[in-house]
Amino acid sequence: MGAASADLVADLLAGDRRALARVLTRIEDGAGDVVRPLIAGLHPHTGEATLVGVTGAPGAGKSTLVDALIGSWRAAGQTVGVLAIDPSSPFSGGALLGDRVRMQDHVLDEGVFIRSMASRGQLGGLSWSTPQALLALDAAGFDVLLVETVGVGQGEVEVAGLADTTVVVVAPGMGDAVQAAKAGILEVADVFCVNKADRPGASRTARELRELQMLGNHDGADTPIVLTTASSGEGIEELRTAVADHRTALEAGDELAARRRARARLQIRELALGTVRARTAAVRGAASLDALAVAVADRELDPYSAADRLLDALDGA
Amino acid sequence: MGAASADLVADLLAGDRRALARVLTRIEDGAGDVVRPLIAGLHPHTGEATLVGVTGAPGAGKSTLVDALIGSWRAAGQTVGVLAIDPSSPFSGGALLGDRVRMQDHVLDEGVFIRSMASRGQLGGLSWSTPQALLALDAAGFDVLLVETVGVGQGEVEVAGLADTTVVVVAPGMGDAVQAAKAGILEVADVFCVNKADRPGASRTARELRELQMLGNHDGADTPIVLTTASSGEGIEELRTAVADHRTALEAGDELAARRRARARLQIRELALGTVRARTAAVRGAASLDALAVAVADRELDPYSAADRLLDALDGA
Repeated sequence: MGAASADLVADLLAGDRRALARVLTRIEDGAGDVVRPLIAGLHPHTGEATLVGVTGAPGAGKSTLVDALIGSWRAAGQTVGVLAIDPSSPFSGGALLGDRVRMQDHVLDEGVFIRSMASRGQLGGLSWSTPQALLALDAAGFDVLLVETVGVGQGEVEVAGLADTTVVVVAPGMGDAVQAAKAGILEVADVFCVNKADRPGASRTARELRELQMLGNHDGADTPIVLTTASSGEGIEELRTAVADHRTALEAGDELAARRRARARLQIRELALGTVRARTAAVRGAASLDALAVAVADRELDPYSAADRLLDALDGA
Repeated sequence: MGAASADLVADLLAGDRRALARVLTRIEDGAGDVVRPLIAGLHPHTGEATLVGVTGAPGAGKSTLVDALIGSWRAAGQTVGVLAIDPSSPFSGGALLGDRVRMQDHVLDEGVFIRSMASRGQLGGLSWSTPQALLALDAAGFDVLLVETVGVGQGEVEVAGLADTTVVVVAPGMGDAVQAAKAGILEVADVFCVNKADRPGASRTARELRELQMLGNHDGADTPIVLTTASSGEGIEELRTAVADHRTALEAGDELAARRRARARLQIRELALGTVRARTAAVRGAASLDALAVAVADRELDPYSAADRLLDALDGA
């Protein structure tokens, strides 16, 4: 590990928030040779934090909910690190990040650290950097790590692969539970949260969630459903308790360890595939991706044969 | 190519819809050694179809819109193949697929073929099978291929990578355009569609889309915005015309060929990575994913070093 990396790791472990921010920036930039020594230095100091995923459709009020949950954990004496995965676009710029700014209620609290990360440009809904960023927050000593995703669908399934406990948030409204089911996120829920419960239809949405679960005939049919109104704080303690109870149940069996092994498995494989992806970009000549793409587009070569040539070029390199 | 594959390909090329359905099932099952000869046989007969992506948030009315667009293309004498990428879940079962069933208005029309494909379990929002399935529909001779995605976010960006023309659908309503911007799907739009335009706020949503685009200061600020009411057919011809105009503009420059090369590039790389992924699952012993995951979870090995060992095992195999 280079001297600069070693210093940065030492500072992060000592609780220096600026060092943490710098490490996260390097992880997000994603240059493997820069990130590798950081992770090697941090990894032995990880494994203690509780990982909670919060996910659901746009408009379900996830940011306000996360804000309220932070307050609840803090009141209970726990420190909280938040990673908000943001499919940021050139269009959104800073203007749409008002909710992030709002979370800066906690900006003066040393026990809270909030970071947005872009998922843009990554294959897969979650940024590949996410697991590495979580290691950095874990090593920095936060009791609870919260990963929030904007969006619906694949990203949520991946969050579930990363978190110890996944909270799926829906808002009352015509067909919201059905839309969540369509998006395939119901079965990743360890805890359901019907947020904006002061709106009409909240209890119907809860009932729909239960019915859809029964329909799926899944063994998770007793997944707790908590009604919250994040803006007023209603139900937030109950939600935090449901998360804690799930965690306790995980620890009672081998399930927590099993989830963490699955997480490690995914992380290892994706890091390896990331290396292979980088190698494919470095191939030159007739087996380069550009040359192969022209041959496939011109129907001189089929895609499988092209993929074979690319792999042969890697194996021979 | 095995005799069975050769027969299936010949039947598909001759217009046999049951052969097409069987090929799609094999592609979706995804066994490389089964799919490979099919694609090799079909690929020389592809490249003629127009690829249109339709994407947007759940609830925007995409299925109804696709249904109306099919009717419009059929009235114009064009045949249409539809691939609906469905993040299907154990919970959704068949019960939620009412909209797919509804599209079966066209079930007696030989000029229309509709297929749902699950994206579940795939890393990346789009099923890796999608590009291969599109080749099969293309070879079967459909004039227009339409890919519809449920969900918001990364899947949409990938659709844009696959399609010649991408239609982003939003519905009027509080902040829908802003939510779309947050999800990062505005900049992949070649055509905007404000659907459910008979609802209050449609023109405001259109204005918001325009403003968000300006805010992004993007060179695509003249992206056409079409208002539709898919349920009544209002605006559907205008939408089809906007798609056709975009295609004409693409063909005028090198842009269509460039998009297709980019698509081939992505497809080749992902097929190659799929092969590597399969190889990683086959590694046994101390460098197996399971063994490495235990070592990482126990903090005996950091994730990068584990990924290196996995790749070393592959390179040595």
